[in-house]
Amino acid sequence: MPTTYTVKFDIATEPVEVPGGTLITDAAQKAGIEIGQPCGGQGRCGQCAVQVTSGKVRRRSTMRLAAEDVEQGYALACQTVIEGDLTVVIPLQDQIQERLTTGQSASEVAIPDGYDCCEAQYIQRIPLTLSPPNMEDQTSDWARLKTALLKATDLADAQISLPLLLNLPTILRGSEWEITTFINRENSAEGLAQVIDIQKGRISKDKPLWGAAVDIGTTTVKVVLVNLLTGEVKGQAAEYNQQIARGEDVISRIIFASKEDGDEKLRELVVGTINDLITKACRRARTKPSQVYKTTISGNSTMMHLLLKIPASSIRLAPFITVVNHLPILNAAELGLNIHPQGVVDCLPGVASYVGADITAGVLSSGMDDTEKLTLFLDVGTNGEMVLGNRDWLVTCACSAGPAFEGAGVLHGMRATTGAIDEVWINEDTLDITWRVIGDEKPKGLCGSALISLLAEMLMTGIVNKGGNICHSLDTPRTRKGSHGGEYVIAWADETQIGEDIIITDVDVDNLLRTKAAIFAGFTVLADSVGIPLEMVEQVLIGGGFGKFINVEKAIQIGLLPDMPWERFQFLGNTSLKGAYLALLNYHDRNRIAGIADKMTYIELSADNRFFDAFTSAMFLPHTNMALFPTVEEALKSKE
Amino acid sequence: MPTTYTVKFDIATEPVEVPGGTLITDAAQKAGIEIGQPCGGQGRCGQCAVQVTSGKVRRRSTMRLAAEDVEQGYALACQTVIEGDLTVVIPLQDQIQERLTTGQSASEVAIPDGYDCCEAQYIQRIPLTLSPPNMEDQTSDWARLKTALLKATDLADAQISLPLLLNLPTILRGSEWEITTFINRENSAEGLAQVIDIQKGRISKDKPLWGAAVDIGTTTVKVVLVNLLTGEVKGQAAEYNQQIARGEDVISRIIFASKEDGDEKLRELVVGTINDLITKACRRARTKPSQVYKTTISGNSTMMHLLLKIPASSIRLAPFITVVNHLPILNAAELGLNIHPQGVVDCLPGVASYVGADITAGVLSSGMDDTEKLTLFLDVGTNGEMVLGNRDWLVTCACSAGPAFEGAGVLHGMRATTGAIDEVWINEDTLDITWRVIGDEKPKGLCGSALISLLAEMLMTGIVNKGGNICHSLDTPRTRKGSHGGEYVIAWADETQIGEDIIITDVDVDNLLRTKAAIFAGFTVLADSVGIPLEMVEQVLIGGGFGKFINVEKAIQIGLLPDMPWERFQFLGNTSLKGAYLALLNYHDRNRIAGIADKMTYIELSADNRFFDAFTSAMFLPHTNMALFPTVEEALKSKE
Repeated sequence: MPTTYTVKFDIATEPVEVPGGTLITDAAQKAGIEIGQPCGGQGRCGQCAVQVTSGKVRRRSTMRLAAEDVEQGYALACQTVIEGDLTVVIPLQDQIQERLTTGQSASEVAIPDGYDCCEAQYIQRIPLTLSPPNMEDQTSDWARLKTALLKATDLADAQISLPLLLNLPTILRGSEWEITTFINRENSAEGLAQVIDIQKGRISKDKPLWGAAVDIGTTTVKVVLVNLLTGEVKGQAAEYNQQIARGEDVISRIIFASKEDGDEKLRELVVGTINDLITKACRRARTKPSQVYKTTISGNSTMMHLLLKIPASSIRLAPFITVVNHLPILNAAELGLNIHPQGVVDCLPGVASYVGADITAGVLSSGMDDTEKLTLFLDVGTNGEMVLGNRDWLVTCACSAGPAFEGAGVLHGMRATTGAIDEVWINEDTLDITWRVIGDEKPKGLCGSALISLLAEMLMTGIVNKGGNICHSLDTPRTRKGSHGGEYVIAWADETQIGEDIIITDVDVDNLLRTKAAIFAGFTVLADSVGIPLEMVEQVLIGGGFGKFINVEKAIQIGLLPDMPWERFQFLGNTSLKGAYLALLNYHDRNRIAGIADKMTYIELSADNRFFDAFTSAMFLPHTNMALFPTVEEALKSKE
Repeated sequence: MPTTYTVKFDIATEPVEVPGGTLITDAAQKAGIEIGQPCGGQGRCGQCAVQVTSGKVRRRSTMRLAAEDVEQGYALACQTVIEGDLTVVIPLQDQIQERLTTGQSASEVAIPDGYDCCEAQYIQRIPLTLSPPNMEDQTSDWARLKTALLKATDLADAQISLPLLLNLPTILRGSEWEITTFINRENSAEGLAQVIDIQKGRISKDKPLWGAAVDIGTTTVKVVLVNLLTGEVKGQAAEYNQQIARGEDVISRIIFASKEDGDEKLRELVVGTINDLITKACRRARTKPSQVYKTTISGNSTMMHLLLKIPASSIRLAPFITVVNHLPILNAAELGLNIHPQGVVDCLPGVASYVGADITAGVLSSGMDDTEKLTLFLDVGTNGEMVLGNRDWLVTCACSAGPAFEGAGVLHGMRATTGAIDEVWINEDTLDITWRVIGDEKPKGLCGSALISLLAEMLMTGIVNKGGNICHSLDTPRTRKGSHGGEYVIAWADETQIGEDIIITDVDVDNLLRTKAAIFAGFTVLADSVGIPLEMVEQVLIGGGFGKFINVEKAIQIGLLPDMPWERFQFLGNTSLKGAYLALLNYHDRNRIAGIADKMTYIELSADNRFFDAFTSAMFLPHTNMALFPTVEEALKSKE
């Protein structure tokens, strides 16, 4: 019988007793702590890193950990077994996040120039002094408040809910009839509002009025805390979506949700994530979550269904149907959000199973629905969603691009975090390579932007041919034949943190080709569906965290992006979060998003033969039809 | 130490052990059973009668019980101590009710002639066959349903709540896309509706669609169960308001509510009463409460506050303010009503602390808001509420009439139940009296209608003078001097069930005078406030159960009702329940009630000197100003 050890986690209330040899992840679970394991406990993602501050452990693998991290006691919880009494520190998720990502600290959203935050506000705070009742004026408490409220505003009518009525007489009489009402206007100029809170005393105009914009990504959840009176962002926080421990992508989450209590578990995890982030953002802004009166939420359709525990199975199975795209307005208590219980929760509308609110919000923040210019909007993550159009019309589609650019399906692929090679250059004479690593340390793998550059450089230097095969007979030790066909060595084992060669293989190239071909085929079908040649597109707007680091020249060279002048491309960052932020502030933009959702024509690619044809044609570097890529053709010719 | 006995109540799950000498009420409480004791456990009201089917008890008092009841084991729980192991049957409250009241079995409400029940309905049931989704039609489940719903109806827009969305995909796919939706329309012709239920399959048009109208009286709660498709009443039930065990009148209830958890207790009691009644009414109509989709509730302002647990203290204390008169629409789950959880609960609007929804609903059902005739509407219960006006204007007031006509404050007064004398005649020569008893048995006391007749007959025969004093020196043994002044004997001890003389005293007459004076003073002030002489009133409409049994001639003779031709008086029954029934059926009538509430001018009598003057003038029989009662003056003269 193995010896039993005591493990004390810093964030647990009680230590737990476990037998020697137990994994730290299992001990944590016993202590009631969920440690995210996006890679399923294979020691590949590094998400489960914890710090063992005292006691003896045995690390089976330290992949994803730097030597100095190991020295400081860091260990992958899923790869480390307990061999003595331990004390373990669980790093805050956002510390992990900050350790793993390039971590921008600047705000992801900003008040647009010339924007009037006081125009078309939803949440308003109205201080009121009521005349006390007397025998000549026996108006009811609520009628008295309502009359004063309508007089003080441009409102035509106001409503109140039962929970507020229960406290109304106490508040009015306890405040000498001096109060501040918080109202939520309908999303129109008709002047209808709901009273959502009543507080004693007249609150000063200078005191901020808080709202939160939330973007629920499949991987990452982001929150910005906004002073609704000025539009200023006063706090923000981001963290991996805690659902990630139950599946990396939307499909595996939907499957998990359909298991017993899986839907409730996923709901709790994402609501927990949002609540954590709101708490953190509030701490940074020196306020409390109970002072937040509105939350506007963006995210893909699966995330929205799981947040509300709406069955999502029909999203996964043909014919791919959402239960609902336009959700009713909810209150925080209904949803379990830890803001003011009567706080308003607005889940933005989506279009289809794979074109969700993240895209409608993205289109809004891109401004493509308000321009005459023919615009292509692109958001690449696990899926690639794209929209073509302008102020008059919008067509959209989603292609199962696969997460190759996020590092999945590529032997040494990884997310764009510390230790990832993010840019490469190949010498066309020596076929030798130089690279840049995030965090200026020894490399562990390649992130998406490096994969694009690598593929482009390999094409331009003849290391890979148009068909995607690596020529392993070239005059360099970096090309070689491996067990799965040709290989090219990016970094030799002794140059890396992982102690083995970082390579790219024919299989990797094929996966990358499929991804880029799916995206380009999406462009082709969209353009084809409206009978407009792709080259007529006047601007290409790219949203999503990934977009920010793409080298346009290289992306064109591999045929991921259409061949057009670079100045037509713009990278917009997290357009989903930006759209949620704008919709939080005012109902004009919120109505625009609803209009975008209604206006978009969705094209289902899985049922479209044009898509398969276009995909097959795009399974070359850059494309079978070189006429579509004249600059690439020219560059390739010049190298011959 | 006393012996311990086992008491088994039929409706309790477990027997209880109590010491010998314990009151049955206390034993019942120990068993978790609340036995109503409106009289506070004095053995006076008879409400706590139970049936001891085996075992030994000692009855301290059997007042209110007939000899045959006692033979059958009936006992007043508050007056009976346990002297052996017992089995006790608690009669159903409505059995008690039926034993104690005259118990009409005919419906209290009826479909008005020529009334179109299909016009302006709130709740509608729409069967729909949806086309299943496919790759060419990926509309979301909700959008699919909504499109079909709008197509099948004249609706302009429809909304759905989150709880229904959670089940939507399962219902649609489990029913082969054949469903029936239940909607609640807004109270206007604008065509907005909320989906409140979705059931599998197409429900036949012939199947009833249920709603319930509820009248919460301070004393009695009544429910009628209505097929909303036809307007027919298919079940009804009435029961004492279970709150009565916590106080007889609104003032004592408000005081109880302000004690710790008192508000929650009272809420539970009245919600429990309503749920019991709905269950009973449903049983009679062979349906289930979960099939009831709407409840429209009428009641005085205090009852409405207590139902919703809204603090009611300000109703009791000057300046007598309600928290709210126009309540938001609620759903059944919010309120704890045992109908369909998404069922709509509409609490009708009131006007002031002492003019509640019972009066606005009463005005509607009286039709006085829709006639050119100058109308006086009167509802006498514990308070007397009255409304004067016509289709153009309405003024209203409430006078603390006191419950003398309900039997309180009168030595041998009682409610109009079995054993109550309800009519009397005095021979003007012999001054002897004959009477009629409810239930054709020996009398126990006098109910309100008998008190009015008695006072009138005593006045006409000179037994009581205009000042309200009983002449105890008349040539009959029935008049005599008692400890509180003059007395008149209505029934000798051996003629009664109670074994003592049933008498009326100077003190009783004074209480009755105060009550009738308060009511008549109310009329005077209302007429005075609009500058119209009371005799201009073209019709007097009398609501409330009490009204039905008043002898108009006698009521005029004592100065309770104004002296005008008898044909101007109409008795309308339970106008509050009737108004709730009409508002349940259609939004035209519901909107009319809201309009009535808005239109009514409320006059606060407690701050009105005119009221005190008018009250003082009315403290005579029939009045100090005999010119107001010409027919009475003439009748009195003819006797001289």
